Amino acid sequence: MTSIAAAHYRGNKSFSVDTITAAPPGPGEVSVRVAYCGICGTDMHVFHGNMDARVGFERVIGHEMSGTVEALGDGVSGFSAGQKVVVRPLVHCGECPACRSGHEHICHNLKFLGLDTNGAMQEIWTVPAHTLHALPDDLRLDHAALIEPVAVACHDVRLSDLQDGEDVVVIGGGSIGILVAMVARDAGGKVVLSEVNPHRLAIAQKLGFETVNPAESDLAAEINQRTGDKGADVVFEVSGTQPGVDAMTKVAATRARIVMVAIHAQKPEIDLFQFFWRELKLIGARVYEPQDYEQAIAIITSGGVDAETVITDVAPLSDIQAAFEALDSSPTALKSLIKVGENA
Amino acid sequence: MTSIAAAHYRGNKSFSVDTITAAPPGPGEVSVRVAYCGICGTDMHVFHGNMDARVGFERVIGHEMSGTVEALGDGVSGFSAGQKVVVRPLVHCGECPACRSGHEHICHNLKFLGLDTNGAMQEIWTVPAHTLHALPDDLRLDHAALIEPVAVACHDVRLSDLQDGEDVVVIGGGSIGILVAMVARDAGGKVVLSEVNPHRLAIAQKLGFETVNPAESDLAAEINQRTGDKGADVVFEVSGTQPGVDAMTKVAATRARIVMVAIHAQKPEIDLFQFFWRELKLIGARVYEPQDYEQAIAIITSGGVDAETVITDVAPLSDIQAAFEALDSSPTALKSLIKVGENA
Repeated sequence: MTSIAAAHYRGNKSFSVDTITAAPPGPGEVSVRVAYCGICGTDMHVFHGNMDARVGFERVIGHEMSGTVEALGDGVSGFSAGQKVVVRPLVHCGECPACRSGHEHICHNLKFLGLDTNGAMQEIWTVPAHTLHALPDDLRLDHAALIEPVAVACHDVRLSDLQDGEDVVVIGGGSIGILVAMVARDAGGKVVLSEVNPHRLAIAQKLGFETVNPAESDLAAEINQRTGDKGADVVFEVSGTQPGVDAMTKVAATRARIVMVAIHAQKPEIDLFQFFWRELKLIGARVYEPQDYEQAIAIITSGGVDAETVITDVAPLSDIQAAFEALDSSPTALKSLIKVGENA
Repeated sequence: MTSIAAAHYRGNKSFSVDTITAAPPGPGEVSVRVAYCGICGTDMHVFHGNMDARVGFERVIGHEMSGTVEALGDGVSGFSAGQKVVVRPLVHCGECPACRSGHEHICHNLKFLGLDTNGAMQEIWTVPAHTLHALPDDLRLDHAALIEPVAVACHDVRLSDLQDGEDVVVIGGGSIGILVAMVARDAGGKVVLSEVNPHRLAIAQKLGFETVNPAESDLAAEINQRTGDKGADVVFEVSGTQPGVDAMTKVAATRARIVMVAIHAQKPEIDLFQFFWRELKLIGARVYEPQDYEQAIAIITSGGVDAETVITDVAPLSDIQAAFEALDSSPTALKSLIKVGENA
């Protein structure tokens, strides 16, 4: 048994950092010494109390992590102590119709590690070995904490079937929108990012993106003007808003692919006529598959995503409360990391 | 110059059948002696006055036709007088972004023959030669009048990427829904047809389809029960209604493809969350491409569509007024044909 620090979500927008004992890994498991863990939008939902029924008040959250192998359980091979790794935090059931069709990543009984189980906001995290991906030795572990959200973007772009030179509109410039824009650009897309928040627009511009503020100018007219009245070949709806849904059909070229990245808790109105008239395609995209993780590792390693600009804050685990509060009120933060372990 | 009979839409739910003179075909054109012309849902929209601004009051409508070659214009080869043919009634501009991307069938400046030009409710119809498809000599011309709507269904099924043995739900059992169901079954799909109209349900059952009346039983529960809680791999939304749009996401399996066949003049509310959660795909599908016409000809020729059951009425051109009125009030009619010419 090893004494470690772990941050528990206690409800009411609060965390406590406690000393707990870490058990050795069981059969088929690996213990990972966590280096960094990013704060996801989902973690902010937990912080706001929107997921109390799912996570309870003794949960260690966190899943956007990087670390090193601490110990291997019985029957695990292919990894060695000290090796840099990330965790793909999905555990599927293997028996539902989705699993039987080869879509384990959207298993009907999916367990999301760090929400349905304890997560990475603790110094040692024990996970099933099949969730690990090895990292290059020289990849910085702070940068590697971006692999999980970049894998989301890689999945979105892969499902869009984006081709080199195609026109892309990303609707919504939060952290996922920015990462989708970066991965789409890395794949050869000519990207325009639509966002109403001036701070986010400034970040996108700093990252070299063409931007449009649809509150100030006519997005569809801008896209038509830039594309010779063709429209965007690929659209990513990342805003989760009715205006975003209105815009996605307006900017789309004939036979465009529109990827639904955002979570729409309400049922928005959609201009279905345009789907018929222009033979548009809407493609739902959720989390990632193993190949998306491998691509995300490659993109982070190659610098295809500008990690230094995306990571706007780093705080130690002892300051997790202040880090969540700061992210909640900051108009300029893009990705905040928690430095969990001394190996970071 | 040849004197022929032609039915003109005169507004106010009325046609007049007049004697006009047919000009010989110009360069690149072919004159077709029309045998049969089906009454399309769009023709009923014209009859109801909903398209007066587009068609005016001197228009010969009709496009679901069959016939024989009457005369070839200068520069036309590959067809001979008396040969059985159908017309694919689309003329594209060749210059818009859709045409430049190879999607001529949904050209931004598409001319639809029989709406934007005079159509097939006349004894001789002159059309661009590139719109013709040759028919097998032994194909009955009444059956051949179904090729245009069957080509719509072939396009819908092709875009769905339906695989042999997959579970299919067709929402809406009008004439297009029935044809989609037939083509999907011909492609190996296990089809359930959802429809609320008891007359249409009876026709579908007569054609051997499993049916569900969603006003009487829970469609999603029925589909789950039939598919081991998987849901339908392919869904065709042909109803054009909010309940149809609600149902399409409820019956869909993980990674299902939903084809948007219907025209939704209103913007319905859509459960976009399900698109994200189950990675659904929505595919807009409009009219047809040449290969869909060739497939429709093959299916009609092989008997994959039961033409005898689908064709519920045949009336001579002189009775076109009564035929439209009867179709407007009949609960049991599926496809009414006008027998236009003596070659029929």
